Amino acid sequence: MKTRAEVVVLAADLAGTTVFAVEGAIIGMRHGLDLLGVLVVALVTAVGGGIIRDLLIGAAPPNAIRDWRYPALASLAGTAAFVFHAAAQGFTGPLIIALDAAGLALFAVAGVQKATNYGVRPFVATLMGTLTGVGGGVVRDMLLAQVPTVLSADIYATAAWLGSAVLVSARALRLPPAVAALAGGASCFALRLLAVQHDWHLPKVPVW
Amino acid sequence: MKTRAEVVVLAADLAGTTVFAVEGAIIGMRHGLDLLGVLVVALVTAVGGGIIRDLLIGAAPPNAIRDWRYPALASLAGTAAFVFHAAAQGFTGPLIIALDAAGLALFAVAGVQKATNYGVRPFVATLMGTLTGVGGGVVRDMLLAQVPTVLSADIYATAAWLGSAVLVSARALRLPPAVAALAGGASCFALRLLAVQHDWHLPKVPVW
Amino acid sequence: MKTRAEVVVLAADLAGTTVFAVEGAIIGMRHGLDLLGVLVVALVTAVGGGIIRDLLIGAAPPNAIRDWRYPALASLAGTAAFVFHAAAQGFTGPLIIALDAAGLALFAVAGVQKATNYGVRPFVATLMGTLTGVGGGVVRDMLLAQVPTVLSADIYATAAWLGSAVLVSARALRLPPAVAALAGGASCFALRLLAVQHDWHLPKVPVW
Repeated sequence: MKTRAEVVVLAADLAGTTVFAVEGAIIGMRHGLDLLGVLVVALVTAVGGGIIRDLLIGAAPPNAIRDWRYPALASLAGTAAFVFHAAAQGFTGPLIIALDAAGLALFAVAGVQKATNYGVRPFVATLMGTLTGVGGGVVRDMLLAQVPTVLSADIYATAAWLGSAVLVSARALRLPPAVAALAGGASCFALRLLAVQHDWHLPKVPVW
Repeated sequence: MKTRAEVVVLAADLAGTTVFAVEGAIIGMRHGLDLLGVLVVALVTAVGGGIIRDLLIGAAPPNAIRDWRYPALASLAGTAAFVFHAAAQGFTGPLIIALDAAGLALFAVAGVQKATNYGVRPFVATLMGTLTGVGGGVVRDMLLAQVPTVLSADIYATAAWLGSAVLVSARALRLPPAVAALAGGASCFALRLLAVQHDWHLPKVPVW
Repeated sequence: MKTRAEVVVLAADLAGTTVFAVEGAIIGMRHGLDLLGVLVVALVTAVGGGIIRDLLIGAAPPNAIRDWRYPALASLAGTAAFVFHAAAQGFTGPLIIALDAAGLALFAVAGVQKATNYGVRPFVATLMGTLTGVGGGVVRDMLLAQVPTVLSADIYATAAWLGSAVLVSARALRLPPAVAALAGGASCFALRLLAVQHDWHLPKVPVW
C-alpha cells in the first residue's frame, strides 16, 4: 500500500505529464504536423526530459519505458488536444502558465532526487534536475528544427536550475528531505512566475 | 549452428539495413554533404532506430555496436551509393518503395519482439516497434536540420505503428509467434503500399 | 597515487575539455543565446561526444556524469568566455586551431581506448573514436538547428577517423600501447593541420 505522500507525488507527477503533453501537442499542431506527429511531439515533451535523465544516470530502462502509464497518459492527452483543438487553442493565460511552472518545479525536484538516489554528486544532480524539467521541450524544439527557446529567451531553464540548486543546497545543509523538496520546488515556481510577470531575461552579449 | 528461420531473419535484417543505408546516402548527397557526411547519414538511417530502441529498453550496448556487421554493411552500402551516384539516382520507383516498406515492416516486427523479450509491456512495445522502424530516419532528418517527414506527411510511421500493434495484439491473443510476426509485418507492409498507391494521409487540424 | 602517465593524460583531457567548451560558448554567443544557453552549448560541445560514446558502449553512467570535474570545468570555461567575451572574440588563429586539433586527437584516442576496454571490436571502435572527437560539436549544431559542419565541410571528422583507424591498426599489429596511442593522435593532429593549411576537402558528388 502506498503512503499518502507517495500518492500526492504520483498525482502531481501525472498532472505535470498531462500539462506538458498538451502544451507539446499544441505546439505540434501550430507547426502543421499530422495526428501522429502531434502525438510524437506530445510524448517527447512530456517524457523526454525524464528519459534522458534516466539514461544519463544509469537508470535503464527509463521510468517512462518501464511504467506504461506515463506514455499512455501523454498519448491520451495529446489525442484529446488534437480532437478538441478548438478548445486547446484556449489553453493559455495565467492559469496555464502557473500549471506549467508547477510541472517544471515538480520535474526539477523529482530529477534531483532520482539523480541523488543513483549516487550522482551535487553539481551534476543540479544539472540533472534542470534537464528533467526542460529536456523534453528541448528535444521537441530540435524535432521541429528550431533553436530551443530555453537557450535564448525567458527565465525558464534558469528557474529549473535555481530550484534544483536550492534543493541540493538544502540537502547539503541536512534539512529534512520534505523541507528541502518544498524549498526547491517553491523557488523554481516563484522565479518562473516572477520572471513572466516582470518580463525578466538573462543577459546576452552585445551582437558581434 | 543456426536454424533455417534464424538464417532467414538475419538475411532479411541485413537486406533492410542495406536498403535504409542507400536511401540515407541518397538523401545525404541531395543535401550536398561530403563523403564522410554521406556515410554518417547512411549509418544513422540504417542503424539509428535500433540503437535508440536498445538504449531505451536497457539492452546496452546496442546490437549495432556489439555486432560490427551492421555498421560495416551500412558503411559499405553508403560508399557504394556515393561511388555509383549516377546509378543511385535511379534508386526510386515501385520496387524501391516495396523494398523500403519491407524493411520498415521487418524493423517494426524485430523492434516489438526485442522489446518484449526485455520485459517491456505491450503499449510501450508498440511504441518501440514504431521507433525501430522510423527512428533512424528521424535522427537523419534532425541532422539535416529538417522537421522529420514522418511527423507531418505520409502514412509511414503509422504503418510501422499498425504492424507493431497487430503483432502485440496477436501475441496477447496467444497466436503462435510466427503467425503473430507475419500478421504484424504484413499489415505494416500492406498499409504502407496502399497509402502510397491511394495517396492516403493522416488528418491535420486546420491552420490556426 | 597516480602515475606520471595518468597525470599527463588527465591534464591533457582537462585541457581538451576547456578548449572545446570555450569554442562552444563562442558559437553560442554568435547565435544570440543568453547566458544559460551559452553554458548549455559549452557543456554539450565539451562533454557531449564522450557521453554519447559511453551510452553506446554500455559505460553507464557516462564519465562526465560520474566525475563532476568535467562538467564543472566546462561550465567555468563557458562562463569565463561569456564574461570576457571581448577577449573571447580573439580566440582564433593558428594557436587555437592547433589547440583544437590537439583536443580532437586526444578525444579520438581516448574514445578508441575506452571502447576497446569495453570489448568493442576494431571497426566499431574506430567509429567510437571519431564520435568522441566530433559528437559534442554535432549535438551543438543540432541544438542550433544547423546541419553539422563536419558533415559537409573540412577535414575534421575525417582526421578523427584517421587517428582512430591508425590506433586500431597499430594495436592489431601488437605495437606497444603508448606507441599506438601516439601514432593515432599524431596522425589525427597532422592531418587536421595539413588540411587547414592546404584547404583540403573531401569529395562531394556534383549537384543533382
